[in-house]
Amino acid sequence: MTATGAGPWRVVLASRNDGKLRELDRILTGTGLAIEVVALPPGPEVAETGSTFAENALIKARDAVATTGLAAIADDSGLAVDELAGMPGVRSARWAGVRAGTRADRDAANNALLLAQLDDVEAERRGAAFVCAAALVTPDGAEHVVHGSLRGRLLTAGRGEGGFGYDPLFVADGETRTNAELTADEKDLISHRGKALRELATVIADQLGGRRPA
Amino acid sequence: MTATGAGPWRVVLASRNDGKLRELDRILTGTGLAIEVVALPPGPEVAETGSTFAENALIKARDAVATTGLAAIADDSGLAVDELAGMPGVRSARWAGVRAGTRADRDAANNALLLAQLDDVEAERRGAAFVCAAALVTPDGAEHVVHGSLRGRLLTAGRGEGGFGYDPLFVADGETRTNAELTADEKDLISHRGKALRELATVIADQLGGRRPA
Repeated sequence: MTATGAGPWRVVLASRNDGKLRELDRILTGTGLAIEVVALPPGPEVAETGSTFAENALIKARDAVATTGLAAIADDSGLAVDELAGMPGVRSARWAGVRAGTRADRDAANNALLLAQLDDVEAERRGAAFVCAAALVTPDGAEHVVHGSLRGRLLTAGRGEGGFGYDPLFVADGETRTNAELTADEKDLISHRGKALRELATVIADQLGGRRPA
Repeated sequence: MTATGAGPWRVVLASRNDGKLRELDRILTGTGLAIEVVALPPGPEVAETGSTFAENALIKARDAVATTGLAAIADDSGLAVDELAGMPGVRSARWAGVRAGTRADRDAANNALLLAQLDDVEAERRGAAFVCAAALVTPDGAEHVVHGSLRGRLLTAGRGEGGFGYDPLFVADGETRTNAELTADEKDLISHRGKALRELATVIADQLGGRRPA
């Protein structure tokens, strides 16, 4: 796919997670790319059947391209807990097996389960990493996947009101605040999703015909 | 440690899980070893802080030796689910993070959580293995650990009233019945714990001065 040169490139963000959409939009805006971000139209969610973050990001981006005919950006991300052999991983959003209720309900159930599962794990063994795969798929079938990660440790109780998902439990290396206690800009600067999307922005810039992000 | 030759060797079974005790006792009796199996006296449970089955089996056996002065047999076992990167693994007994209630309550919570976590996983990806490490620790400090495993697959709903733990969800390779639908003898013949304990029996026989199990 080549950019038209006339006006911004339209890219659909393939997510229905509001917290994630806000982050994706914010981070992409911050790159200064000449793109117009559009939301995914209403419809059924595609099944995230991949066994890796990259597979799931591609599944979501391909589905959005098929639905909209636009280039699509998708991310798949999650928390890899050392003591759980890298789980919840791609199952982070549904770790407690709860499908009903709001996303906040599911976040609360996932956080409660993770804390209970790790309630006998001492501080030095509570390491974890947030991991993100970000994919760009264009209507001509070109596919790109990049990764970002953020190492840290898990607390024994949540703190903070920002972010979403496991953010209240996670303190990044070098930080004292949880991800949910950081400002949005602070989080984006260090986060797995921030790193991955800024790298993806350079890929998009190439697609845009050499116009680099500001 | 050397066997006295006068009367059976007394060995303590380092477990407070009734289902497991019944199996351990049954399997060891089946080996025909000249040992007298005694129960662990009442007391606090030792913390299973190991990150492998072998570490936990040794922790429990060492604790029982320290408490009783007798040789001790312990096992640590669990279910390694392919889709969960080998988890619940050493966390099988507390996967749902539930500490209250009876063991049956905890089994029910663990089974329900595992089924919910895998509710989108199709049949060909529902592989799992029961894994057992069995340890013998003698009062003179000698330590032996052996392993046994049983491959199979997980159903989408439990079946059967026998066994314990995840037995109702698990169908061994070559079987059509769940582990909870097998007779005790059938289960012992193929189970991870049966395999490990029969191997441990040969170690014990050596300790008993060359007297092999019948």
